[in-house]
Amino acid sequence: MPTEQSTTLLRVRYSETDQMGGFYNSRALEWFEVGRTDWLRQAGIPYAEMELRGAMLPLIEAHVQFKGRARYDDELVLTTNAEMSGKARMRFEITIAHSSGKAVASGYTVHAIVNPEGRPIRPPQWLTEAMG
Amino acid sequence: MPTEQSTTLLRVRYSETDQMGGFYNSRALEWFEVGRTDWLRQAGIPYAEMELRGAMLPLIEAHVQFKGRARYDDELVLTTNAEMSGKARMRFEITIAHSSGKAVASGYTVHAIVNPEGRPIRPPQWLTEAMG
Amino acid sequence: MPTEQSTTLLRVRYSETDQMGGFYNSRALEWFEVGRTDWLRQAGIPYAEMELRGAMLPLIEAHVQFKGRARYDDELVLTTNAEMSGKARMRFEITIAHSSGKAVASGYTVHAIVNPEGRPIRPPQWLTEAMG
Amino acid sequence: MPTEQSTTLLRVRYSETDQMGGFYNSRALEWFEVGRTDWLRQAGIPYAEMELRGAMLPLIEAHVQFKGRARYDDELVLTTNAEMSGKARMRFEITIAHSSGKAVASGYTVHAIVNPEGRPIRPPQWLTEAMG
Repeated sequence: MPTEQSTTLLRVRYSETDQMGGFYNSRALEWFEVGRTDWLRQAGIPYAEMELRGAMLPLIEAHVQFKGRARYDDELVLTTNAEMSGKARMRFEITIAHSSGKAVASGYTVHAIVNPEGRPIRPPQWLTEAMG
Repeated sequence: MPTEQSTTLLRVRYSETDQMGGFYNSRALEWFEVGRTDWLRQAGIPYAEMELRGAMLPLIEAHVQFKGRARYDDELVLTTNAEMSGKARMRFEITIAHSSGKAVASGYTVHAIVNPEGRPIRPPQWLTEAMG
Repeated sequence: MPTEQSTTLLRVRYSETDQMGGFYNSRALEWFEVGRTDWLRQAGIPYAEMELRGAMLPLIEAHVQFKGRARYDDELVLTTNAEMSGKARMRFEITIAHSSGKAVASGYTVHAIVNPEGRPIRPPQWLTEAMG
Repeated sequence: MPTEQSTTLLRVRYSETDQMGGFYNSRALEWFEVGRTDWLRQAGIPYAEMELRGAMLPLIEAHVQFKGRARYDDELVLTTNAEMSGKARMRFEITIAHSSGKAVASGYTVHAIVNPEGRPIRPPQWLTEAMG
């Protein structure tokens, strides 16, 4: 059974704004990571624990589409889905929207599965099981 | 005559690392911005001046491929190219590599051209001329 | 009646770690800002609204003592207090601790009260009233 | 012979601004770190190499005074000095100014000297010699 999508709420921090008055673009990737953390926790495999078990998920690709503004202190909703991509990669799809539903950004990240030395490993069974 | 590519040197800051031991993924977008800043300066239209003239370049799309590690204090070389994308957008292509030539990341960003109120504007003539 | 202290929960993000394995030092100032945001909201004067009313609170001084480690995904508790400092400044005192009570960092920030042009202003009555 | 002060040039990045139009306050601590990196390199003990030799310098205290604005793309000059603080700590003093000399921020950081497990160690001889 595939793990269901996870939902995360966060507020735009002042430190995340830029002089254009909205959030600075790279924050989207930081928020994507917050969404991944919550998805993995909900799937029963907190990422901190994954790293302790020797499986790391470095990014190999990221894509973001910026769809609308978000300002300081706006409350945003992250919706995160994940799936295996081939036999040795994970792919997360994330959308960020205002609580009104108005789109802010969406995109995906693709991750290798590597050991602490950075070498690709077969996805551990506990990971593929959690993935559904 | 199209503006030539620009080259930027930077060193990975400690603040840009993460606990995996390399640079945190979102820094790539911050470095892309450093590359854009230098490209625009070299083209004779410093971005700070562009904003004063009322033309802003918010991101509408970003793509990054992560190709290799870079560690704290490593010196990196950013190579930036830019072109118009359709009639109303700019596109920057950036590669990040070690000074040895070993690839770190590459990608592109697509930008709208808007006024300070966020409305799309025709690219000003001084911009299209600088673009070549 | 002085406004009571506010309490904020947050988790250390992966983007906030560094290669030493804990959080990078400057994140403490970013978390202090999250604490201020919550204190002001609880006092009935959300900072986003303060800025709209023309009162900004730029930092003029910050002090942090680093007392213990916090790792990725650790849940932290911020406790924030605020008071006027002289007639024209605000001072926030913040402690950051693990939910176990173990100290992570503490410190203070001192803020000028300025208009959007950056000139010091008398604290508006709605602010001094909220401060108690 | 005490090591002389080091000087670092940097430009304010767009990612370092906030919606107030200047640099976001926590960037000062990130720039302080850039200054430390350059001071240590000039003293002949690059920090990356220090960590490889098993000596780390986590912050235990930081203080910043914000003295003036700096905007996107402004060129700033960091001036860094360092000394031992007691027998087991290092202290860095840093000033940040515009190239015109106009002050932006100044402050200090105090660092423990620890091994990779986080335990305080005696300052290695090569470090105290470099400190002068």
